Amino acid sequence: MFVTFLTDFGLADDFVGTCHGVMKRIAPELEIIDITHGIEPQGVLQGALMLANTLPYLPEGVHLAVVDPGVGSERRALALRSGDGRLYVGPDNGLLIPAAEKLGGIEAAYEIANRKYALEPVSATFHGRDIFSPATAYLASGVSIEELGPAIEPRSLQRLELPQADVNDRRIRACCLYVDRFGNMQLNLTRKHLEQLGIEPGRQVELELASERYYAIAARTFADARGGEIILYEDAYENIAIAISGGSAAETFSARPGVEVRIRVAE
Amino acid sequence: MFVTFLTDFGLADDFVGTCHGVMKRIAPELEIIDITHGIEPQGVLQGALMLANTLPYLPEGVHLAVVDPGVGSERRALALRSGDGRLYVGPDNGLLIPAAEKLGGIEAAYEIANRKYALEPVSATFHGRDIFSPATAYLASGVSIEELGPAIEPRSLQRLELPQADVNDRRIRACCLYVDRFGNMQLNLTRKHLEQLGIEPGRQVELELASERYYAIAARTFADARGGEIILYEDAYENIAIAISGGSAAETFSARPGVEVRIRVAE
Amino acid sequence: MFVTFLTDFGLADDFVGTCHGVMKRIAPELEIIDITHGIEPQGVLQGALMLANTLPYLPEGVHLAVVDPGVGSERRALALRSGDGRLYVGPDNGLLIPAAEKLGGIEAAYEIANRKYALEPVSATFHGRDIFSPATAYLASGVSIEELGPAIEPRSLQRLELPQADVNDRRIRACCLYVDRFGNMQLNLTRKHLEQLGIEPGRQVELELASERYYAIAARTFADARGGEIILYEDAYENIAIAISGGSAAETFSARPGVEVRIRVAE
Repeated sequence: MFVTFLTDFGLADDFVGTCHGVMKRIAPELEIIDITHGIEPQGVLQGALMLANTLPYLPEGVHLAVVDPGVGSERRALALRSGDGRLYVGPDNGLLIPAAEKLGGIEAAYEIANRKYALEPVSATFHGRDIFSPATAYLASGVSIEELGPAIEPRSLQRLELPQADVNDRRIRACCLYVDRFGNMQLNLTRKHLEQLGIEPGRQVELELASERYYAIAARTFADARGGEIILYEDAYENIAIAISGGSAAETFSARPGVEVRIRVAE
Repeated sequence: MFVTFLTDFGLADDFVGTCHGVMKRIAPELEIIDITHGIEPQGVLQGALMLANTLPYLPEGVHLAVVDPGVGSERRALALRSGDGRLYVGPDNGLLIPAAEKLGGIEAAYEIANRKYALEPVSATFHGRDIFSPATAYLASGVSIEELGPAIEPRSLQRLELPQADVNDRRIRACCLYVDRFGNMQLNLTRKHLEQLGIEPGRQVELELASERYYAIAARTFADARGGEIILYEDAYENIAIAISGGSAAETFSARPGVEVRIRVAE
Repeated sequence: MFVTFLTDFGLADDFVGTCHGVMKRIAPELEIIDITHGIEPQGVLQGALMLANTLPYLPEGVHLAVVDPGVGSERRALALRSGDGRLYVGPDNGLLIPAAEKLGGIEAAYEIANRKYALEPVSATFHGRDIFSPATAYLASGVSIEELGPAIEPRSLQRLELPQADVNDRRIRACCLYVDRFGNMQLNLTRKHLEQLGIEPGRQVELELASERYYAIAARTFADARGGEIILYEDAYENIAIAISGGSAAETFSARPGVEVRIRVAE
């Protein structure tokens, strides 16, 4: 049985390794795929979007995700099942919802409350180790989701507000959702938004970032532009993104998630 | 058979991957759990404390740890067995001792000297690859620890000096052992030290760091404080730690391991 | 069947985890060893050298490597077989060549063109996920390399220019190939180059970096020098490297890959 694992724990500390250990002690035969542990600390929205983007490429199994600023508070611990049969474990802060909704919708939700499936004692600050990892391992080894605790009405689950782009017939106001290692800036846009302004590969566009204007070219891939040119392209997860051919857009623009980007067709 | 693996190698270079490869060539069926490779370069004390903290959460097996400033010198290569049957492999510089003593005590110690269980030639600078990984893999595949080399008198093993807190009836002088990704500062204190001053959750305390004074609150978890408040809490490994609710204590205080922290009950 | 995996993807994003997932969906029984994902972005030469250095220590299998500045352009996707039976998958930009030539020479080369062994649709910017990972997984599960696409004449493969040292009877002009976590600077030299000037362990040498001169000692390992001394030594991959005993050479010299280093026997 596969477990996938996504957190904001980083790899410098022991958090990820310890959770692996806890799961392996309970279910030595399960196999863990680490999606990433590089979500920015407390970046629930970033984690939720990345989980939804990547799960279609990952084997079905139990999908553990922990980005949990509310650890130790009254926020609930969740186990979900989506319409395609995948199971999810994590905090009730919206992190799991976009993935589950993309993959068949939330079919059932349970609060993880049965201490039989937790480590004892449960610490106040590391539920990844003491609650979420054990619940994941028990699910992966055949414990049924109903065993973990009481059913929850799916409508009562916490949800995230996803930042929406504002598009009119002259310009798009978007924002940067994510910056990757190569400095590519993922925006809260899809190809449909660009098409509303008639922007397609080959078209020149005008970008406005932090009150500065830049010319860019709509392109299919980095190699379609000359070195140093700014390109607007559809990335591998079907989000529109900004890159600099042979360079780093995020560094050039000092851009971080949340930054506003305006897009116009160039005159 | 499980192998756990902790080093200061980082993940940017090939060191960890190469050691995995060496172990898998010798014992393809063994399974490696990476505790962390983010120990600060040459941080023997940090590695030793993290190994002792995490092993109880990890499956029993062969526990490989390499933080090895003395590589190539006369320092011995060690294999240990603790009272609970776990095996340990690493350099004789104190790294393995706190974990083995916590888990049943050092029952037997051997110098890894039998070149039959090393790669040839042994390099002068990468014993992780050439000595420790092969010894681990052979142990994990059933070679008995006595085969690796001559027995060592446990009293002759190198040990680390653990920094001790100084507590009197008015104040505690402690030091920061470790800073994690979230900026939480682990101190060389346990709940018992705080209780000597009557400090328990809900109590206000005064911290002194780098000649500056701060008010903090003793709390159970981050969520028990308002955003921006400094809290003193028992972390998931039962060390006392300093955090800032919704922020980074280490950043706010520019704190690093070794920094002195004084704690008083607030007037 | 083992797969080894080396990229410049880093671990902060999902790229590595997603590729793992793609491979595991196709061939759940394959086992992946991550050599490293810390190659500097677009560092094809660095990746090629590290692959050649490390593969002898890794189990035979399918060796996937992706450092791919030309993704989406006309550069070909490759599958190779070397004389010792290992298989290689990656872009046709020279990345795979030094490893394959070291391990028996390039015996056969194929262009990965058969869309039956790719994900559909193939994105323009993430061939690691859509082409290279699937091809690797199919090879690892028994698909024969000829199935992936047309044979390529090995002489037509892209090759890298490896920076050559310039040695005369008075001095060596070398360059830094790589800087590791410990600040050790790997040079494009082997022991033979030093021997041409009669430099062997114990000998004092003069280094020139960025127009500054330093005394260093040729040594076998870090422990052979006093703290703070600069040493010139043969590293674990048989390259000559510069280190500072108990310190970081790269930090002290602000050195990066590509920096020129001149070496003379000290008067």
